[in-house]
Amino acid sequence: MKTLAFAAPGAMGAAVAAVLSQHGARVISPLSQRSADSQQRAHAAHIIDAPEAALCDADIIFSIVPPEFALSWAQQMAPHLQAAARKPLYVDCNAISPETLQQVAAVIEATGTPFVDGAIIGLPPGEQNPDGPRFWFSGPHASQLAELSDLGLRVRIMSAENGAASALKMSYAGINKGITLLVSAMLINASRVGAAEALHEEMTESQPQILKRMKKAAPDMLPKAWRWAAEMDEIATLNQGELATDRLYQALGEVCRQLAADRRGDQRLSDLLAAFFQPDAESARAD
Amino acid sequence: MKTLAFAAPGAMGAAVAAVLSQHGARVISPLSQRSADSQQRAHAAHIIDAPEAALCDADIIFSIVPPEFALSWAQQMAPHLQAAARKPLYVDCNAISPETLQQVAAVIEATGTPFVDGAIIGLPPGEQNPDGPRFWFSGPHASQLAELSDLGLRVRIMSAENGAASALKMSYAGINKGITLLVSAMLINASRVGAAEALHEEMTESQPQILKRMKKAAPDMLPKAWRWAAEMDEIATLNQGELATDRLYQALGEVCRQLAADRRGDQRLSDLLAAFFQPDAESARAD
Repeated sequence: MKTLAFAAPGAMGAAVAAVLSQHGARVISPLSQRSADSQQRAHAAHIIDAPEAALCDADIIFSIVPPEFALSWAQQMAPHLQAAARKPLYVDCNAISPETLQQVAAVIEATGTPFVDGAIIGLPPGEQNPDGPRFWFSGPHASQLAELSDLGLRVRIMSAENGAASALKMSYAGINKGITLLVSAMLINASRVGAAEALHEEMTESQPQILKRMKKAAPDMLPKAWRWAAEMDEIATLNQGELATDRLYQALGEVCRQLAADRRGDQRLSDLLAAFFQPDAESARAD
Repeated sequence: MKTLAFAAPGAMGAAVAAVLSQHGARVISPLSQRSADSQQRAHAAHIIDAPEAALCDADIIFSIVPPEFALSWAQQMAPHLQAAARKPLYVDCNAISPETLQQVAAVIEATGTPFVDGAIIGLPPGEQNPDGPRFWFSGPHASQLAELSDLGLRVRIMSAENGAASALKMSYAGINKGITLLVSAMLINASRVGAAEALHEEMTESQPQILKRMKKAAPDMLPKAWRWAAEMDEIATLNQGELATDRLYQALGEVCRQLAADRRGDQRLSDLLAAFFQPDAESARAD
């Protein structure tokens, strides 16, 4: 039986662990310092408590943590990995730039531990996403992870170096979230000058797919705007000096922060955005 | 019979003029200094040659010119309008920001001529767009243009001030063209690090509408990137200091200029973008 270790039993980690344990794997994670809620979620996913040092005994360690902890968690694990006689495979699945990923890889590889760049795209497995997200892996050891498909995961091996899976995840998020932010900003701008109803009608006729997408995506984004800001900043580092995507995503990060500040303040911008999609506005629009 | 004047017999102007003359209107425009091609196009659209001073005898003057000439053409017409005993309705239909629109309005209104803010959204009427584009009008005199629907145009009157139609057009272009530029930039970034095939597969599964849209929009955009740059710069001025859309669209303008420069140079970026959509890449992508 495979033993798989998770850095933490977060929403994604616990949901993935549940699939793995349902398929016969043994799943371990440090639980003792977690909240009662997290411990309950971990218990439901059949995750077994283990101290960080013991994670090295697993076949594979998955790092699935908030992106800003990807590097520090690797640094925390490094002494344990260094000391381990038999090295597990360390897979970083976090939403970090290829640049940050290379830093994490350097920390792990210095301990003699094989490293894989991973990217999880999609919602956690569960009611909203019965098929689960797709797991993309790149780097010289990526092909070892093909067997995870026997444990219920949707696995894709990229024939590309470390950094490629991270770049894939960043590019995908840059497209998906970038569209939501860019369109939201324009809808707010149009609303401020009395062009909301006309823009709604125009989009109904000539951009129905984008309108439909935004009707769900804009209200979903608002409460997450603050968290998205850090992700946009990370995407801004994807640039290698050839295209102004650094400035583009820095500006999108700033839009996130402005929307988050508005939400904590008088909510004028988020009210304009919400009003754009309201049925009243639809029925009252110019004809 | 209505007489309608056009600033110039451009692609949009001539196609609209053809619809109007088919519906019984008399259409005039200055033709004498035009190229043989333009004169032939004007002739086919039943446009009658008239000097600029004579345009004031029309019921309505449509300014449909390259955006950078919207203000200078208004300034050129101002003395004629000033001198006219009976003032026509002057409609600016150009892709300009509300700010520039207000400058044009000030020039025209100073001559005692009633002014309407107009926006044309969609391709010129013709084989590719049999229903024709939509004509949006705002400002205190906009309702006078409702009768244009009897002459074959799709007219929408906005109950909003001058500037609203321009803001509508800018916002719409900001959404439509902004999506194309943002996604193109991310596709190029992903391609540069070997993640193109994976991103294509991921989008095929989870973003099929955006992928389909981009397959047409990206190659259509490349030859126009230089012209789009000026439009992105204009959209950047929509900002009123509340959202970082100024920096967002300045960055998109820069992406346009970089893509245009690449096209004139070694075409490395545009080749990467083209390769992303190529059937070969599709069949060879990771599985």
